[in-house]
Amino acid sequence: AAMAVARTLVKQLLGSPRPPAWIFATCRDPEGPRAQELRDLASKHPNLVLVKLDVENPSAITDAAKVVEGKLNGMGLNLLINNAGVYTPTASLDTADAEDMVRAYRTNAVGPMLMAQAFLPLLKKAAQESKEKGLSCSKAAIINISTVLGSIKKTPDSFFKPVISYRCSKAALNMLTMCQALTYKESGILCVALHPGWVKTDMGSQEADLTVDTSVRGLLSVLPILSEKHSGTLLNWEGKAIPW
Amino acid sequence: AAMAVARTLVKQLLGSPRPPAWIFATCRDPEGPRAQELRDLASKHPNLVLVKLDVENPSAITDAAKVVEGKLNGMGLNLLINNAGVYTPTASLDTADAEDMVRAYRTNAVGPMLMAQAFLPLLKKAAQESKEKGLSCSKAAIINISTVLGSIKKTPDSFFKPVISYRCSKAALNMLTMCQALTYKESGILCVALHPGWVKTDMGSQEADLTVDTSVRGLLSVLPILSEKHSGTLLNWEGKAIPW
Repeated sequence: AAMAVARTLVKQLLGSPRPPAWIFATCRDPEGPRAQELRDLASKHPNLVLVKLDVENPSAITDAAKVVEGKLNGMGLNLLINNAGVYTPTASLDTADAEDMVRAYRTNAVGPMLMAQAFLPLLKKAAQESKEKGLSCSKAAIINISTVLGSIKKTPDSFFKPVISYRCSKAALNMLTMCQALTYKESGILCVALHPGWVKTDMGSQEADLTVDTSVRGLLSVLPILSEKHSGTLLNWEGKAIPW
Repeated sequence: AAMAVARTLVKQLLGSPRPPAWIFATCRDPEGPRAQELRDLASKHPNLVLVKLDVENPSAITDAAKVVEGKLNGMGLNLLINNAGVYTPTASLDTADAEDMVRAYRTNAVGPMLMAQAFLPLLKKAAQESKEKGLSCSKAAIINISTVLGSIKKTPDSFFKPVISYRCSKAALNMLTMCQALTYKESGILCVALHPGWVKTDMGSQEADLTVDTSVRGLLSVLPILSEKHSGTLLNWEGKAIPW
């Protein structure tokens, strides 16, 4: 599911009126069969670079940051989107165990923390070199793809899907986003958590009401409106605030 | 710090006008020097039982539940207080790493989940055998000792202490508490997260304003007022709600 969203993000960014100078698309196995579509896109779009990355592996994250730094060749990175995520659809309190909990936490919360740490010098460089005042995605930003399922307050509305390990890891990701916003503000970096909606993928399943295309179009239309006041918040694909 | 709170909880419970029939005090090493005071108390109070438990170890949790079940000899358990917690005082976004994050998560979020799973049959038994309507601590309850530092909304007020790994694990614990409240309601079990205040212990340090005694007296005075409407909320030691 995360893969479908990532692919669509890349496609819509490449097709936008002013495509980015560089798009770095990370995936676990850039040579594997699931990355075929990304490879096809990269062969047509020289601004798209595939980077090998498994966010569960801390040293792979620093390796990926070096690859990106090399390509950027002295330029900064404006936008880091943390979209990787794992999900155990069956994890109720009857079935969730320690390993399921920790696995979800490593990918969904710890991974985004390590990603921001590793890419921080490149984000800071982009912020420093920007002439814009305040915070924005065109200056420097970290976008953590989160979910309304990580909202504690909204949990009673969606508990027909208990998904304990996912919910707990995403509540932690929301906390991380707030901490990042408070920490990185002085470096000129905007930090926001976004809920992509109930997307028709393997994660979203039956109850889903958005296509991946609609969700990603929504997310990409929210990015340009983000400013200082949104940093440290959770917003949906239409830019509407979701309570913690 | 968790140890100081646990010790004081036990002392105040033993000294209350109607002390519980049984108090099970768990600690990592009931034979060790740090448990001396608990051993002294147990020698004077036959209703106090020390139980060996390290909540980072899933099989130790099920072992501890068996010990408690044996002592209760057919009776239920009315109240489970999850008080164990770890804390890395220096964990800012500059220094937090994957292992610190995962260690805090295992103890502060996964541990309480496994504890509730293991003690669920005993809690259910207490609920079934109670004649009380609704939910209450005298019927059957899970109390997760959380913290205002796990409140995402309140984070800007206390971010002079970043403690990233602690905050993220406690935000997850708050989510867990909500999920437990929704799941265990039909079994008649109340689930609440409590913030003990800024207690003068090694965790609380300088800014602390409560003695352990005052904090625990507060927590114990909140328990009897808890009812259905509090299940799935975060309250402070005075019973005041804290937003997520």
